Amino acid sequence: METPTIIGLTAGTLTTLSLLPQVIKAWKSKSTKDISLGTYCAFTIGLSLWVVYGIELNSPPIIITNVVTLILAVMILLLKIKHG
Amino acid sequence: METPTIIGLTAGTLTTLSLLPQVIKAWKSKSTKDISLGTYCAFTIGLSLWVVYGIELNSPPIIITNVVTLILAVMILLLKIKHG
Repeated sequence: METPTIIGLTAGTLTTLSLLPQVIKAWKSKSTKDISLGTYCAFTIGLSLWVVYGIELNSPPIIITNVVTLILAVMILLLKIKHG
Repeated sequence: METPTIIGLTAGTLTTLSLLPQVIKAWKSKSTKDISLGTYCAFTIGLSLWVVYGIELNSPPIIITNVVTLILAVMILLLKIKHG
C-alpha cells in the first residue's frame, strides 16, 4: 500500500472516530451545556450531503466514513437536544 | 457546474465551517467542561494528516478545507486546554 493511501486511511479513521470520546463523555455526564448546537446541526447536514456526494460518485470510502461520522454526530446532537 | 460538485462544495463548506459556532461559544463562555479533549486531539491529528494527504495528492480542495477546519479545531483545543 502506498504512503498517501496509508496517510489518507489514517486521517479518515481518526477524523471519523474522533467523535467517539465526545459521545461517551456526553452520554456519561448527561451534561452538554458547553457543546454548540449550531456546530452539530451544521455538521450533521454537511455529513449527510457528503453521503449523498459519495453515492453520486459511487465511492464506498466517502460513503462509509461519512455514514459512521454521521451516526456519531447525530448521537451528540440528540444528547444535546435532550440535555440542553 | 454539475450537481455532484455543488453537493460536494456545500458539504465541504458546512463541515468546514461547522466548528465556528463552537469556537464562538467556547470563546465567549470560557466554559469548555462538556467538550471532549480526546475528540479534539484526535480530530486535530486527523485533520493534519488530511492536509498532508492533500499535499501528497496536490489537491487544493482537500488542503484548503482541512487547513480551515484545522485552524478552528486547534482554537477549540487551546480553549479546552486553557479553561479545562
